[in-house]
Amino acid sequence: MNIVIVGLGIIGGSLAKAFAKYTNHHIIGINRSEITVQQALNDGAIHEIGKLDSLGKADVVYMCTYPEHIVSFVENNAGYFRKNCIITDVCGIKKNICGRLTDICEKNGLQYVGSHPMAGKEQSSYAASEAELFQNASYIIVPCKAKEYSVQALASLAKEIGFSTIRITTPAEHDRMIAFTSQLPHVLACAYVMSPCCKNHNGFSAGSYRDVSRVANINETLWTDLFLSNQEPLSEEISILIQNLTAIKNAVDGNKAEELKELLKQSRLVKQGLCE
Amino acid sequence: MNIVIVGLGIIGGSLAKAFAKYTNHHIIGINRSEITVQQALNDGAIHEIGKLDSLGKADVVYMCTYPEHIVSFVENNAGYFRKNCIITDVCGIKKNICGRLTDICEKNGLQYVGSHPMAGKEQSSYAASEAELFQNASYIIVPCKAKEYSVQALASLAKEIGFSTIRITTPAEHDRMIAFTSQLPHVLACAYVMSPCCKNHNGFSAGSYRDVSRVANINETLWTDLFLSNQEPLSEEISILIQNLTAIKNAVDGNKAEELKELLKQSRLVKQGLCE
Repeated sequence: MNIVIVGLGIIGGSLAKAFAKYTNHHIIGINRSEITVQQALNDGAIHEIGKLDSLGKADVVYMCTYPEHIVSFVENNAGYFRKNCIITDVCGIKKNICGRLTDICEKNGLQYVGSHPMAGKEQSSYAASEAELFQNASYIIVPCKAKEYSVQALASLAKEIGFSTIRITTPAEHDRMIAFTSQLPHVLACAYVMSPCCKNHNGFSAGSYRDVSRVANINETLWTDLFLSNQEPLSEEISILIQNLTAIKNAVDGNKAEELKELLKQSRLVKQGLCE
Repeated sequence: MNIVIVGLGIIGGSLAKAFAKYTNHHIIGINRSEITVQQALNDGAIHEIGKLDSLGKADVVYMCTYPEHIVSFVENNAGYFRKNCIITDVCGIKKNICGRLTDICEKNGLQYVGSHPMAGKEQSSYAASEAELFQNASYIIVPCKAKEYSVQALASLAKEIGFSTIRITTPAEHDRMIAFTSQLPHVLACAYVMSPCCKNHNGFSAGSYRDVSRVANINETLWTDLFLSNQEPLSEEISILIQNLTAIKNAVDGNKAEELKELLKQSRLVKQGLCE
């Protein structure tokens, strides 16, 4: 297959490296910065530097830029794609872009399938990309109105580069779950390091501090975009978290040992149930 | 040196294994459960199964049981210890026990020095202990009224078993910092997994979910005790976290992109400052 990857940041770059390492597909990279796309060619992550014309030979296009750019890129360049080309994205939110991309693609005879590779790091840019990023990760597919063969093609490609789980869902369920599993940990890592104590943590901290603060090393432009594209589910999850923190705080303030122990026990049981 | 370790859970067991592996000190284990202490002997983690009489030959005693048990054990058995024996503990809070242990030890001609090895896992019991637990970790010493040689002796022992940092502080500063670096991550991990979404996370989650929820696998008896022994600093840290979560939530609800981006940027700068 001819695969075009637009945007060689950490996810696009990792997709390129993984396809180059684990498959025989022909990988074409398109990127705003010339230096990065040249670097990717030198690294063997892509086989060819693409231009807009390259979209015409793509079987699959992975859009790996910021959410708003994805929609405008496909809309403005719809004429360049081959008919029935499969277009997917790697966005962290779906409701906000799936409808628009489905409409644009339907009008232009293209197959849009939403995707969300559940992998990342607390770093961004091509320099942080790696072929192994997707090993044993989950690949979420949001089919929207795409034909079944498109969904199957993306699932197969995901398996080829190391994903172990394929989860098929709707934009609404995706966004609700991601608010909890991905956005909320980023919100709370940022809220956590805002404590005045944080700057003095050296020598007083260990694994639990390190783990909860890790993703505070955030790309604020990308995540502002993601948070504001998913306001309602995210806001609800923050509210639920605040309620649960308040329940624990009240038990601490009131010196209610049995109530506190019961709250912690319920959390442990949920977590252990999920470990099994 | 003759070292007695009372309580062979994850911390006491790991201390025993580390001393046995990295030093030539003679290690004596005292434990409520016979099966565990016999296992430790079989593992070579201790050289001798101790009784109360064994306290009489100890140069250093590490009290590794629950906070309340530590105070009552030292009080009830003060007559068994050798004069000028160094007694330390591994408790996660200090103000609540340091004063009482200092008084008991002063009355009985013993040297009490508070300690807190900043290492642990989301598991408890001897089965989870390991010799490598303290590699590159920080060892906090709370000298209270102990003589300098006792503090130096504990610092040297800590270095021998792999700790890379020694931090000397007061009970009050210790408890304030630990409320933030250790207790708050446990509170928020528990509050986090209480979301109704949590049980459905499979296929939707990756590293940020895993890291923030890790310590929800909590020992609720121990942590209820620790939280209630540090009510004021912990309660204040939870309040600060709720304030910061609310600031982010308000920016999300109000669709305030610039304000949200600025909040996230400040968090990133704090985190990056700490990474350097």
